[in-house]
Amino acid sequence: MHSTNSETNMPKLPKKNERNALAFSQVSNGLQIKGRVWIEREGKTYLSWGRVVLLERIEEYGSVSAAAKSMQMSFSHAWHLIEDMNALAPEPLVEKQVGGRRGGGAWLTDAGKRAIEDFAQLVRRFQGWIEQERIE
Amino acid sequence: MHSTNSETNMPKLPKKNERNALAFSQVSNGLQIKGRVWIEREGKTYLSWGRVVLLERIEEYGSVSAAAKSMQMSFSHAWHLIEDMNALAPEPLVEKQVGGRRGGGAWLTDAGKRAIEDFAQLVRRFQGWIEQERIE
Repeated sequence: MHSTNSETNMPKLPKKNERNALAFSQVSNGLQIKGRVWIEREGKTYLSWGRVVLLERIEEYGSVSAAAKSMQMSFSHAWHLIEDMNALAPEPLVEKQVGGRRGGGAWLTDAGKRAIEDFAQLVRRFQGWIEQERIE
Repeated sequence: MHSTNSETNMPKLPKKNERNALAFSQVSNGLQIKGRVWIEREGKTYLSWGRVVLLERIEEYGSVSAAAKSMQMSFSHAWHLIEDMNALAPEPLVEKQVGGRRGGGAWLTDAGKRAIEDFAQLVRRFQGWIEQERIE
């Protein structure tokens, strides 16, 4: 039940200088419209591209530290983002086990899997909108 | 022929912690979708919210320094943004006069006025799209 980039059609992580575009129009007259969307809860960032990719990577690697490493993100930053999402969500998106026979690990709850899918669908609809946009 | 925020319906400048949202959905189940768009030319940022507000302020104040000051932007940064837009555009968006009887000044060309209007219309369409979006 992995939700990888290829399955959800989530764009790959952007390079730093790409302003984190999530959707891109066609180039028309040399111009291209780009954009991003995110979801807030109680006025605070809840789901954004980086957060959702982190969820995907946790699902893929089964570990917060491996997920963070794959994104060149510090473990403490990844941990902070997960705590933040879990606190904002009606039910936690990520569950973690510290230590234990398998050396601990992390996995997505059903709510976490739904969060990825909801965000990916939003991004697909956003891409659909931006694709039919034109600037003179 | 001023193009002020109120005429073009451009959102006001965001506070620093608002992630520069340009469009906002209704709040549904405590969730709100926010987003931003920008326009690139040759892979470089051409028009974005900050740049277009700078153009509007130049039209309003007739001066790069006054426009920059009103946005708490340094003069050199404003000057850089204008040079950048002028270089990317097929024809300059801003014309400047240094010194002279009226002490110099800056004003928008017709292309500059069109750029504001095109961007404002894009933002209005983006707002229209995001308003009908819902997250479960």
